[in-house]
Amino acid sequence: MPGTRCSEKYISHAKEPVISTAPSPRTSFQTHPTRYKHWRLRCEGELATLTMAVQASGGERPGYELKLNSYDLSVDIELADAAQRLVFEHPEVRCVVLTGALERVFCAGANIGMLATSTHAFKVNFCKYTNETRLYLEDASACGGKRFLAALNGTASGGGYELALACDRILLVDDRSSAVSFPELPLLGVLPGTGGLTRVSDKRKVRKDRADVFASVAEGVKGKRAVEWNLVDALAPLSKWKEEVARHAAELAREVVPRTGKGVELASVECAREGEHWKYTHVAVAFERAVRTARLTLTLPSQTGPKDAAAARAAGSGWWLFQLFRELDDALVNLRFHEPEIGLVLVRVVGDPAVALAADAVLTSTSDWFVREVAHYVKRVLKRVENTAKSFYAVADAGSAFAGTFLELFLACDRSYLLADDAARVTLGVSGVHAGLYPMANGLTRLQTRFLAEPRRVQDVLAHAGRTFEASTADELGLATFAPDALDWDDELRLAVEERASFSPDALTGMEQNVRPCGPETMETKIFGRLSAWQNWIFQRPNAVGEKGALKCYGTPLRPEFDFRRT
Amino acid sequence: MPGTRCSEKYISHAKEPVISTAPSPRTSFQTHPTRYKHWRLRCEGELATLTMAVQASGGERPGYELKLNSYDLSVDIELADAAQRLVFEHPEVRCVVLTGALERVFCAGANIGMLATSTHAFKVNFCKYTNETRLYLEDASACGGKRFLAALNGTASGGGYELALACDRILLVDDRSSAVSFPELPLLGVLPGTGGLTRVSDKRKVRKDRADVFASVAEGVKGKRAVEWNLVDALAPLSKWKEEVARHAAELAREVVPRTGKGVELASVECAREGEHWKYTHVAVAFERAVRTARLTLTLPSQTGPKDAAAARAAGSGWWLFQLFRELDDALVNLRFHEPEIGLVLVRVVGDPAVALAADAVLTSTSDWFVREVAHYVKRVLKRVENTAKSFYAVADAGSAFAGTFLELFLACDRSYLLADDAARVTLGVSGVHAGLYPMANGLTRLQTRFLAEPRRVQDVLAHAGRTFEASTADELGLATFAPDALDWDDELRLAVEERASFSPDALTGMEQNVRPCGPETMETKIFGRLSAWQNWIFQRPNAVGEKGALKCYGTPLRPEFDFRRT
Repeated sequence: MPGTRCSEKYISHAKEPVISTAPSPRTSFQTHPTRYKHWRLRCEGELATLTMAVQASGGERPGYELKLNSYDLSVDIELADAAQRLVFEHPEVRCVVLTGALERVFCAGANIGMLATSTHAFKVNFCKYTNETRLYLEDASACGGKRFLAALNGTASGGGYELALACDRILLVDDRSSAVSFPELPLLGVLPGTGGLTRVSDKRKVRKDRADVFASVAEGVKGKRAVEWNLVDALAPLSKWKEEVARHAAELAREVVPRTGKGVELASVECAREGEHWKYTHVAVAFERAVRTARLTLTLPSQTGPKDAAAARAAGSGWWLFQLFRELDDALVNLRFHEPEIGLVLVRVVGDPAVALAADAVLTSTSDWFVREVAHYVKRVLKRVENTAKSFYAVADAGSAFAGTFLELFLACDRSYLLADDAARVTLGVSGVHAGLYPMANGLTRLQTRFLAEPRRVQDVLAHAGRTFEASTADELGLATFAPDALDWDDELRLAVEERASFSPDALTGMEQNVRPCGPETMETKIFGRLSAWQNWIFQRPNAVGEKGALKCYGTPLRPEFDFRRT
Repeated sequence: MPGTRCSEKYISHAKEPVISTAPSPRTSFQTHPTRYKHWRLRCEGELATLTMAVQASGGERPGYELKLNSYDLSVDIELADAAQRLVFEHPEVRCVVLTGALERVFCAGANIGMLATSTHAFKVNFCKYTNETRLYLEDASACGGKRFLAALNGTASGGGYELALACDRILLVDDRSSAVSFPELPLLGVLPGTGGLTRVSDKRKVRKDRADVFASVAEGVKGKRAVEWNLVDALAPLSKWKEEVARHAAELAREVVPRTGKGVELASVECAREGEHWKYTHVAVAFERAVRTARLTLTLPSQTGPKDAAAARAAGSGWWLFQLFRELDDALVNLRFHEPEIGLVLVRVVGDPAVALAADAVLTSTSDWFVREVAHYVKRVLKRVENTAKSFYAVADAGSAFAGTFLELFLACDRSYLLADDAARVTLGVSGVHAGLYPMANGLTRLQTRFLAEPRRVQDVLAHAGRTFEASTADELGLATFAPDALDWDDELRLAVEERASFSPDALTGMEQNVRPCGPETMETKIFGRLSAWQNWIFQRPNAVGEKGALKCYGTPLRPEFDFRRT
């Protein structure tokens, strides 16, 4: 590989790869700035600085060292936490500067030793989670709360550059050596795995021939060419680095409308795990391993919560709706990483639908930044459902409460089973949230996506806003997949579960990834549907992960041996 | 798998699977209705009937029987030929009826024995070719020449239903047993591989929960539910089958503006293969196997060809431009299927750029159906370049003629190398074709796609329409990736070729599939970029192709054994 070796110094790797069933005993997705090992968060007025200072020995599991600000899941969990806390706890912050604590290198990307010793499933889940965090930054910017400046004080390689691509602006130090680069293809035989190619092509609109060259040159592109190709927005010499960072940050901050009032502290999300049960306050998960199924139950409170924005803000992270979705989010990532054999999630919502509709009334009737941010948070959790490689069936039977926000969850599921029986009281409900508060990754609402062929049905449903109704109405509105009566209910549900459990899990993942996000494509759907699919394929190929594959040989004296047949 | 076995009768399979390096010694992609083994083509006035009557023993290679109208590549090569001949040789035909010659089964889809005994690369190439043929039918409809009616006289399974989905209208016999179905997921652990899920979701806009159910039920959906779910357009009882087919065909035919004049017969495309050289009339391929590279040379004629539509029609398939692109198309599919180790194609166009611009003047100045269809043909071949899993570098040096239509080919390549040296005469040229005659799969022109970030550059290039210019101007217009001078030329090109040859072929395919079709997504880009990527992944997974995988066990007494971890 001519001209590629010089950049290897930016990629760290383990010397003794040992495959383990990563991650370690139980990864926790909950953390707090006081416990960060890899990032330093400093807020000063309208600016915050997030400094990447990865602790080499602080990885998720033993077997690799996080040198050169390379990262693993533990680094990204902290970044996701910081992004959330910045949004909720620091409304005064208008621009976040992401920079690195090392000299000459901003971030070397995902740790190769970690990747080389991870299972296929872990690699895929890790990339997905990291991608979701990148999209979180972009969403926080799009929703008006913050701007993000990547202040690349040194080379940004692979995932390091991908993180920069998620920011609103990229400033690169002009020191004759620092570059941005995607060394994955030339050095590792895989692709930049966290949205990089899509962001280069579709977000920054880099010409395809330049993107091709860029992805082929391990040492990357620096200086004026990086600006000319639109890989970065601006350069700054070391001598003026601090001033230029401050100037760009101030410029970005001015784009953000200031927010009023104090921040809302995020309490820790607690889960009690006992045998086959996970118990949060509003969320519970129970496993039926014989059919590889989890029962996910969301319980609404018995009392209506805050009635307006002020009350919601006073309740803070204790606002039941917010807390419920934070718990659901935690349950989802835990299901992904810790329960690979669970293929199907049966979703129930229990309680009084009126309680759900009352919360939706608060969500849709205010411009209060906290309430809006809670809605954005719910939006992202709903997307996380649709982005999870498990099947979801919504189960609406007696006592269930799929109303408003929870009807969105019903619609996010792959199928819905609705008990339609005169003897059973099954209530659903519609609120104002369906009109656009929770767009899917494809940019449409779930109703628009569902009724792509019959758009008038969207209005038929929205006409019921603020009301609850019986199963028969829900079925007429086209909301349910199946609506059996009480006589057939148990058998039909049992057969559906057993059937799903019998299918090839790979074919199910592929099928769901194709039928879930129908309609328009966006950068987001491209990242998960297209780029990730190719990476999944490449991650399986002997050229990457075989004994003589590039990912396996990297950092050893061995050269990879490729089967050069093109597919 | 409850409730799935009854449909197995519609899927044929080999009893003794033997892996071979498919296809057989050398597949020819050239055929003629007089030599069809699997289809009967009958034209009667404005209607044509294409009847599928697959010869069970007539497969591409031994080892499987094409029972129940199941198909392999040989069946699809004939279908592609028939579609082309209908367009060019039968302008009087306004509606094509696709139907089957068997009772109770229209088509059982791709032959499972063939798939189970094929290499991964062949399966992927086969699916891609078949998809391109489906898109050809849709393009022929979209371009106004023909409508297609799928007259399903029996069950259409898997690829059989996918073929129907490519038609404008689907009529299903209502005989209490005939259904449309995707049995791949439940029975084979793979996906419908030729665009099916995308067409169900995005073309027919079937609700995602219904698409999920449909893809899970091996016996498929029939009767009223098939219409209600929009899987088919109409039903007809056996007693009225002929009348209903005729009625729907006549209705579709009326949507097409009649075309005048005689058809244009397609002469056979001939290629002489000698050692490391393929020689057509205008196209030549030479191999440099040490660097896994093919040199593809297109030679323009020395004389300007037809000057108007009448002359072009008189020249027919001998019109040099048409013949050149038919030869290029044949070279591309041969490179795909017969030269898997070739990873890079160096593209040169040799001749007088004025000859190319003269042909473009004919293409862009007439509404003559034949000339328009030639342009559509060129459009499809250019897309086939972009859809080939090999890298393409355009090489513009002295004597080259990348002008107009051939500049589109230049832009279709992954990179372009332009000799920019005062001592060398390198001429390029722009014509009216760049403004929209050859949209890419993403629906944009190649200039629009190239300059997504700088749309004004599109106009800068178009302002040169009808003119040729030197390399320096081409470079200023942003048309080239690299423009070295004579001193650096040889080294730079040699290094570029060697570098490409050293990379992981899988990572290259994945990279190209992500940066080539940037910008908007369409059904077409989704089929190739998203659905195919997932299928590629699934085709590699042990759950499908391992010793106990579903694809391997199908048709044997063995039950597949899955690793149920979801990824």
